[in-house]
Formats: sequence, structure tokens, C-alpha cells
Amino acid sequence: MMEAPTPIARGTLYLVPATLDFGVANPTPLQDVLPAHTLQIAAGLSHWVCENAKSTRAFLKRVHEFYPLAVALQEQQMAELPHKVHKKGDHTGDFDASGLLSAALHGHDIGLISEAGMPAVADPGSSVVRAAHALGLKVVPLVGPVSLLLALAASGLNGQNFAFVGYLPQDAAQRSQRIRELESLALKTGQTQLFIETPYRNAAMLEALLQALKPSTRLSISSGLTLSNAQVRSDPASAWKQRAKPLDKHTPAVFAIGA
Amino acid sequence: MMEAPTPIARGTLYLVPATLDFGVANPTPLQDVLPAHTLQIAAGLSHWVCENAKSTRAFLKRVHEFYPLAVALQEQQMAELPHKVHKKGDHTGDFDASGLLSAALHGHDIGLISEAGMPAVADPGSSVVRAAHALGLKVVPLVGPVSLLLALAASGLNGQNFAFVGYLPQDAAQRSQRIRELESLALKTGQTQLFIETPYRNAAMLEALLQALKPSTRLSISSGLTLSNAQVRSDPASAWKQRAKPLDKHTPAVFAIGA
Repeated sequence: MMEAPTPIARGTLYLVPATLDFGVANPTPLQDVLPAHTLQIAAGLSHWVCENAKSTRAFLKRVHEFYPLAVALQEQQMAELPHKVHKKGDHTGDFDASGLLSAALHGHDIGLISEAGMPAVADPGSSVVRAAHALGLKVVPLVGPVSLLLALAASGLNGQNFAFVGYLPQDAAQRSQRIRELESLALKTGQTQLFIETPYRNAAMLEALLQALKPSTRLSISSGLTLSNAQVRSDPASAWKQRAKPLDKHTPAVFAIGA
Repeated sequence: MMEAPTPIARGTLYLVPATLDFGVANPTPLQDVLPAHTLQIAAGLSHWVCENAKSTRAFLKRVHEFYPLAVALQEQQMAELPHKVHKKGDHTGDFDASGLLSAALHGHDIGLISEAGMPAVADPGSSVVRAAHALGLKVVPLVGPVSLLLALAASGLNGQNFAFVGYLPQDAAQRSQRIRELESLALKTGQTQLFIETPYRNAAMLEALLQALKPSTRLSISSGLTLSNAQVRSDPASAWKQRAKPLDKHTPAVFAIGA
């Protein structure tokens, strides 16, 4: 009688946060924003699902300075999320990411990583997490920096009821309408409304906010959090108008409005 | 002629995240969830605003094992947030926390810390942050674990548009109505809805969710994230009904519903 083959234990999907210094001049020391455990897990992985293999390799090179990689950089297996997923987001359910996780069926742990911060939060990756659950993989989120949450805590706005709504429309009229909609929601329900903008449009966003917001509405802008040029300001719109300072067009910012 | 006194530089308010093991049996090793920089800053502080001085001292005792405290435990200055702020939250603006920050006017840096996770996020503290901004203090959020965000990433639900709404009503009828309201919002707008519950009511919450949700609505429950008994499950409500497993009544959980 033949023995039944021992089933291979499936790998785990680790959600690996990255530093928030993507595209900025001075990189953040990894130990400033990543716990030792996150660095150790990252160093031990050999299979990745990522937005961009090149920046994932650059990240792993930095990790290697703390904990030697278990598998050499050039032998790391990297599957990139398709570009349509980057652009349109992957939460609508029409992209099946299970093919990217096949190594886990052969027992390999896999790391999911995005260009900055936590994968699948204000970034692509949720399709991969959904596929992992569908395949019965264990999903383990690791601790690291999340710009939204750092910005929320630093804003002094209501952190017991808040929403993140992504990007606002680019068209000026639509953007102003959306700002007033979010302000009205924040004032009526007390729910802080957070959103982001591409850095080179930071100044235009601030101008639009100061034009649209009521004087007493509180506006908080955090930029460059965890970077050497980090700044947080939280004031009523009226105070912003009196003492406006242009926003840096190269530094990522998080905007929050509330009562 | 007398020389003008040199003005004292104001202290910084650091937002210091705590581990997520408050009240659970097995403490999380600090290096699992806190970057070295967070531990170093915490070790260097001597003035705190906290929910509870006793648990802040217990936290600092653990920090001391990594980095020696700059000031002995018994000489640390601790100001507790008043109890009404714990209970009702402090985002309504009727509590003036500036008195708690007077040490910063004398040049001392101050740490704001809550019982678990990030202060001022799903926890009291925002009044202190608002007061710091009003006093012109620098506010620096440090990186650490935030259960909501770990749960969102691990859910596979939409992380590009989400809301955290705190606790749901305790009354059964009101709770069911609120669940249906949140479900309807999630399905209509695509905005993931996150909420929390006191651990001993986890089971009742799950039962209420399974009764109220449509079969195809996706429900994710993460419990004990960063703890040794961490669990994440994300499934349509119909699958939860077929294979329900009771939730631990001692472990903090985060609930999320989405499309």
C-alpha cells in the first residue's frame, strides 16, 4: 500500500509596510519607522508581490544592512501587480490575483509590499489579500508607518470617527463641490474627512480649500511625516487664510477637515 | 542696561504608540511592534500625558529593558486625562487640555500615550493635540501599531476609501439598524466601514451581523492582531453563517464590512 503524500503546508501572506520616503531626497533610517520584527520577517522572505520590483529590491538592500537576506537579491522572486491595478485600484473585484500567490501553494511565505506605507491602505494590494483569504492562506499584517494615521493623530481632529476618501476630483469646480460636501459631512456628523493629493498639486489644493471652507472649519495638513522635513499644522480655515504658507510641491501631504 | 532673558524653546509633543496587549495574558515583545526610534524617544522623555499613570509606568519599565530611561520611573511626571474625557471622548472641544501641557512651556518634551495603539486614534487624546497646536508646540507622531489599520489591510476590503465609526449602539434593535445603515453605505459608495466592540460583546456582535447582513456582503473580523493568538477572517456573510466560529470574549477585535 502506498503512503499518502504529506500535504505541503501553505505559506503565509505577510503585509510588509515600506518607509514613506519614496521619491524624496533623504531616505528615512529604517529603524525610525520599522520594528525589528518587521525587518526580520522581510529579510527572511524570498517571494514578493509588489507594485514595482526595482523599488522592492532597493528596499531589501536597505533591510540587508540590518538583517542579512535569507536569499540573495538577484534570486528573490518578484511578481508585479499589473499596471491597470495600480491605476484603477484593485478593490472592485474584477482582478483575480490568485495567480500571483501560487508560490504559497508550494509552501513559500510571500510578502506583499507597496511603494510607501502599508500595502492595501491608500494603495493597491487588496486584491492580493482577498485572493489569499480565498486560498485559505494565513494573512499577517506587520507594523510600520501609515501616513494617514500619523496625520490623523497629529491633526487633533476627531480620531474616534473618521473617513479616508482618497483623491478629490482634479477639475476645479468638481473639487470645490467635493470639498464642500466633505465639510458638510464633517460638520454634521463629526466625522473627520481625510484625503490626499499628488504633491505637485498640493498648493492648488490648499488654495481650493481656503476658498471653499467656512472660516471656523478646522483644516489640518501634515506633510513629510517621518521625514526630516515633517510638518503638521492644524488651524481653523480663518487662521490659515491670515497666515498662509505655500506647501512644498515635492513632499507628500495628508489633508484633514473637521469640526 | 539689562539683557533680555533668552526665551526658552518650547518642548515638543510626541505621540507615543503603545503595544496592543493591554489586558491580555501574553505581552507582545516591544521590538515586534515598535521601531527602535519610538523606543528611544520614549526612553528619553520625563513628562507624560496619559490615560492611566500606572499602565504608563508599566510600559516604561518594558522600554527600559531596551533603552535605559533618562529619568527614573518614580521621578517621571505623569498627568492623567480626566475621567470624563475617557468616557465621553475629547473631540467635542469642551475640554481645555492646555493645563496638561504646561511643562512644554518650560522647555520639556512631553509624551502623549494611551492604553493601546496610537493616542487620539480610536482613543482619547485629540484634546491634548489640539491644545498643543494652540500653544504653538511641535507635534510629532511616532510609528507603532494601530489595530484599525492592520485590520483594514488584512481584510482585503477597499483600503482606498474607508471609515472608522467607533462603537455601535448597545441596544439590539438600534444596533441592527445601524449595521444595515453601514452596510447600505458600504455597498452604495464602496466605502469600507470599520467598527469595534468591547471584547465580551464580540459574540453578540457577530450574531447581530450575521442576522442583519445580506449574504453577499463581505465581513472581516480581525482579533488579537500583533498578539500570539492573532486571527483574521474575511468572507461573505453567507460563508460566515455556514462556518461560524465563536469569537474569543477576551480578545479585542476589529469588524469591517464592505462590498
